[in-house]
Formats: sequence, structure tokens, C-alpha cells
Amino acid sequence: MTTNVLENLQFRLAARPVGMVKDSDWQQVAEPVRELADGEILVKVLYLSMDPAMRGWMNDAKSYIRPVAIGEVMRAGGVGVVIASKSPRFAVGEHVFGTTGVQRYWIGPVAETGPSFLKVDPALAPLTTYLNTLGMPGMTAYFGLLESGQPKAGETVLVSGAAGAVGQTVGQVARQLGCRVVGIAGGKEKCDFVVKELGFDACIDYKGGSVRDGLKEHCPQGVDVYFDNVGGDILDTVLTRINLKARIVICGAISQYNNTTPVKGPANYLSLLVNRARMEGIVVFDYADRYHVGMAALGQWLKEGKIKSKEDIVQGLENFPQALNMLFEGKNFGKLLLQVAPA
Amino acid sequence: MTTNVLENLQFRLAARPVGMVKDSDWQQVAEPVRELADGEILVKVLYLSMDPAMRGWMNDAKSYIRPVAIGEVMRAGGVGVVIASKSPRFAVGEHVFGTTGVQRYWIGPVAETGPSFLKVDPALAPLTTYLNTLGMPGMTAYFGLLESGQPKAGETVLVSGAAGAVGQTVGQVARQLGCRVVGIAGGKEKCDFVVKELGFDACIDYKGGSVRDGLKEHCPQGVDVYFDNVGGDILDTVLTRINLKARIVICGAISQYNNTTPVKGPANYLSLLVNRARMEGIVVFDYADRYHVGMAALGQWLKEGKIKSKEDIVQGLENFPQALNMLFEGKNFGKLLLQVAPA
Repeated sequence: MTTNVLENLQFRLAARPVGMVKDSDWQQVAEPVRELADGEILVKVLYLSMDPAMRGWMNDAKSYIRPVAIGEVMRAGGVGVVIASKSPRFAVGEHVFGTTGVQRYWIGPVAETGPSFLKVDPALAPLTTYLNTLGMPGMTAYFGLLESGQPKAGETVLVSGAAGAVGQTVGQVARQLGCRVVGIAGGKEKCDFVVKELGFDACIDYKGGSVRDGLKEHCPQGVDVYFDNVGGDILDTVLTRINLKARIVICGAISQYNNTTPVKGPANYLSLLVNRARMEGIVVFDYADRYHVGMAALGQWLKEGKIKSKEDIVQGLENFPQALNMLFEGKNFGKLLLQVAPA
Repeated sequence: MTTNVLENLQFRLAARPVGMVKDSDWQQVAEPVRELADGEILVKVLYLSMDPAMRGWMNDAKSYIRPVAIGEVMRAGGVGVVIASKSPRFAVGEHVFGTTGVQRYWIGPVAETGPSFLKVDPALAPLTTYLNTLGMPGMTAYFGLLESGQPKAGETVLVSGAAGAVGQTVGQVARQLGCRVVGIAGGKEKCDFVVKELGFDACIDYKGGSVRDGLKEHCPQGVDVYFDNVGGDILDTVLTRINLKARIVICGAISQYNNTTPVKGPANYLSLLVNRARMEGIVVFDYADRYHVGMAALGQWLKEGKIKSKEDIVQGLENFPQALNMLFEGKNFGKLLLQVAPA
């Protein structure tokens, strides 16, 4: 095909944000798609994953991955369809998952060793599922909970951001393991969903009351595993209710990502000492060589109807800046996706 | 023997301290020793262990052990000699280690299940060693480092309170395991001792310069294991220098025990996430069923001259309040002991 009739709209990082991301931190660029070289493919992006971690990638700080450079297309995971190929590895019409970036089209080589894509099968699960339960949020939940949280049947597992992409899978997996599962989420609607639709034993509405009181009521035996997506005051409060040998999984700290003041450290961290408890950070990429194991387990539970996943889909690439900020305003309900083109 | 000719001087808790412990927080009581009942022994206290943890036991807060009650003899570990016995388990003249409390004499039953004493042999090691390397500080260092820190040969092990009772043993054990060992201590004299006498690779004087600069200089490969006895700003600074999969052992937080404001939480705790690192609290009592293993290992290294221990001995039970406060003023140099009677 002739690719240069296609116009590629991109969101590039214009400035390093201070606090919440502003429109002026983005530069929108539209350029024609270039011709493919040998070994390259062209992917039309269908859905982009909106992740809290993206805020961290925008900071010029040492982290588990290099920061997005000023002027670079914003990093994002996405699913798309191959619409042109000069690689024997991918055929036109195949669906793929990978780091597409925030743009309409991804073009580049798919060498064995470079940035690459995984094929996904829309006949096995809806494409959006590959950005949710069968994608990074699902893998984060599955491996973070099992490997770091190490829950045992009968224990109490608490998860914050319970209606979010990672939280909903954490709780449902913990239920499959025979745990008492309590969520923390913002608002009655999210809490009702978590309990009634996902089958959590209880959910604490941090906007509607005191987390401390909620923990007393819903975790009467204390907390054995806390899967933390939010940090801040909620982490500090949970530290007062952990059990002996408790495991705290630090997956994220969404309450702190847009801080313009220093991060609030957990003042109650000496509860770790009193309770011989553990707090451990996780990054999903560490489990990459076993994603197939997590996908098989979660895929089976999905097929059997034992776990569900909720997605919140914003339409239109042009709405990317607003969509991203929804995460930090607690406005998304379920895994937040941006639909770039009709699937 | 007739025991009631003996006068037992005791330090009882008079008030719950706010901040540093004041003389008025103690009540000195002198009372005659009562007659022994069947199954009881009378122990003459020789040395008492002065431990940072004692400050925590004075607070009315949930912890790993119940608080000392107002009016109760202050809890302390000690070594002593049995001077009267109506128990078949202990003979007069035997030396013992146990929770004697801050007093001249301990009297009570030594049932199998109640509070009890371990026999110690002054022919194998000086009595003071049983309150140091072969006692709680040594067991804390040995099991905390090995079980929670899990150091591997070639890794960098950092320990704060390096000239203190636990720190000196942590560092020397880590050296035996083939690690690079760096201490943090207050003042040139302590740092010189740690390097020249104990064989640490380096020691950072937190009073004489920036800990951040010291870490850059002396831990050029980053920190794999941090054994933390102090908390506060030093913990926060170390968090910026940890390696992937680092292990932080939370043994204590002496900088925070006399706070009248909330404990300073580690603002840089998200370094745990970035580095997939772990922070875990330890309490020595958890390893009680394996103390004999730790004592055998440390005893062997002591015998071979591979590890040393330094003690700082204050004379006279009447000086207990001042001795205890030395810990929080950083005035002790080595394991702090109070000699109650000539050995």
C-alpha cells in the first residue's frame, strides 16, 4: 500500500509537567506516514491503554524505565492491526499488542531483538481485554499478588484502587484463592460495583467515610495482604491494621504522582517492625518471561465467568490529554482506554 | 539463706515519658527481699542490658510486647547469679541470663512455662558477652541479617548504628560472608573503630558530613542490604541509593523513639517500587527456637578471633536513668551495659 496518504496524528511531550498535566505539556503533530523499509511493519492503533504509570514516565527521574524525552511521542501500550508489512513475521490483518505510543500509526522494524509486538487473537477475547485482564494490568495484579503478596486461603486481602484496572483483578484473583477480599474505592457507585458485580466481600468508600472505621468494620481479623495502588494517607492508615507477617505490595501511589511537594512517606512504617511485616515494590516487566502463565490462568477464569473486567472507553485520540487526567481525578470506572479507531 | 536481710533497689515506671525520659518518670523503691516459696529462685543481678527498645516498652501502645505498666519494675534483660534456690532446675552459684528487670534482685518461680532463665557459662565467654554478641544484640544481628537481609558474597551491606551493639555484629558477620561492608556512625572515633578494629570497608560519619556524599563515595555499586537501626533522614537518604532487589531490614529507629511529633515516614519509599526492593521489620524473639544456632556460629567466630565486640559499661544501678538516655544521645560506644554488682 501507499502509506504516505495516511496522516499520523501524534502527541509528543512538549514540557515536563509540574503537578497535574496541562494541555501545554503536549505538542500535537500531524505528519504523513513514511514508506516502509524492509523488515518494517505499519500498525494502525485501535485502542490505547491509559495508565497511572505514564505520569511517572514524564518526569526526568531515575526509574525502572527511561523517561520520555522532550519532543518524543508519548509512550503508551496499545492494540492495533497490521495494515502494511515488509516483515515475514507479521501479516496484514493480524492484530498486535505492544508499545505503540500515543499516535494513530506505529511504523518501525520488528527485529527479534528490538521493540516488538505480540500477536493477539480477537476470536479468543475482545481486543480491549488485551489491555486489561490479559494485558499489563492483569499481569501486574496476578504476579504482584501471587509472588509478592503470597496470599493464603482464609487470609484477608485488602486492595486500594479496587475499581481500577489492577485492583479489580487483584480482588477477583484473591477470591479465587479463598481469601476474604476487601476493596477501597472512591464513591458508592464504585463500591457497589466491586461488591455486587465482582464479588468482593466488602468495599470501603474513602470519599464517603473514614478508612480507619471501614477497616475496623470490614477487616475485623486485620489485614494480611495489602495491595497498594494509591499510597498517601490510605497506606498510612492501613499500616495501623496489619497483622503479624503481613505483606504490603507497593504497586503504585496514584495519590502522590502529581505532587508538587515531597511525597508523603508512611509515618506508620514502624508497624512493619512491630508486626515483622514486609513492604515490597513490584514492576510488571520483571515477570515478562512468565506472562503466558498469567494469561493462561486469567484467560481460563474469564472463560469460566469466574472473573470479570470492566472497561471505561473514551473515544478519540484528540481527547488523550483529558483521558489521562481522568485517572488522577478518580474519574475512570474500570480500566481506562482510549479508542483511536474503530476496531 | 535468709533473704530478707537483702535490700532490693528497683526502678519502677512512675509516668509515661513524653520525649526524652526524665528522672521524674522513674520511682526508686527499696524493699526487703521476701522469703522464697517452693519452685522459686533468687537471682542477684550483675549486669543489665541497656537497649533502645526499652524506650518503646514505656509507651502505652500496641507493640510486639505489652507495655511496662505504671508502678511496675522496668523491664530489662540481665545476667546474674543464683544466690538462693528452692527449684531443682537451678543451683546456687549458677549464672543465668533472662529478663531480670531494673533491680538488684529477681525473685520468682522458674516453672517450665513461666518467665525463665537460661544458664550461661562464664568459662566459655565473659558474662557481658551474653548480653552482647551471644545475647539479644547478637541474635538480632545474626538472624536479622541472614534471614531478612539475605546478603550474598560480593554485595554491599550498609548498617547504621554501626558502633552500636547490633550494628557491630551485623557488619562483622557480613564481612565473614564476603560482602563489602559500610557502616554509618556518629563521630570520627566510632568510625575509626568500626574500620580499624572491626574491619568494615568504610564508615560514614553522619555528624561530620553528608550521608549522601558518603554513600556515593563508599557504596559506588549502590546498596544491596541496608540494616537500619536509626530511621529518620538517614533511612530516607539510603532509599535513594538502593539497588534492584535490595533488602532493607527495619531493626529499629532510634532517631524517632523520643519524638514528640509524629514519626517521619520515609518519603522516598517509592524507591522500593522503582527498584523492586523490600523493607521488612524484624523482632529477635521470633528466632528464639534457633538462638542455639546463632550462638554456635557467633561463638565460633569469637573464639577464632574473627569477630570482636566492644562494650561500654556504666557502673552502679543508681545511674540507670542516665545510662539509658546515653543511647538516645549517641553517647555509648559499643554495647551499653549497666554493672549492678561485681561479677
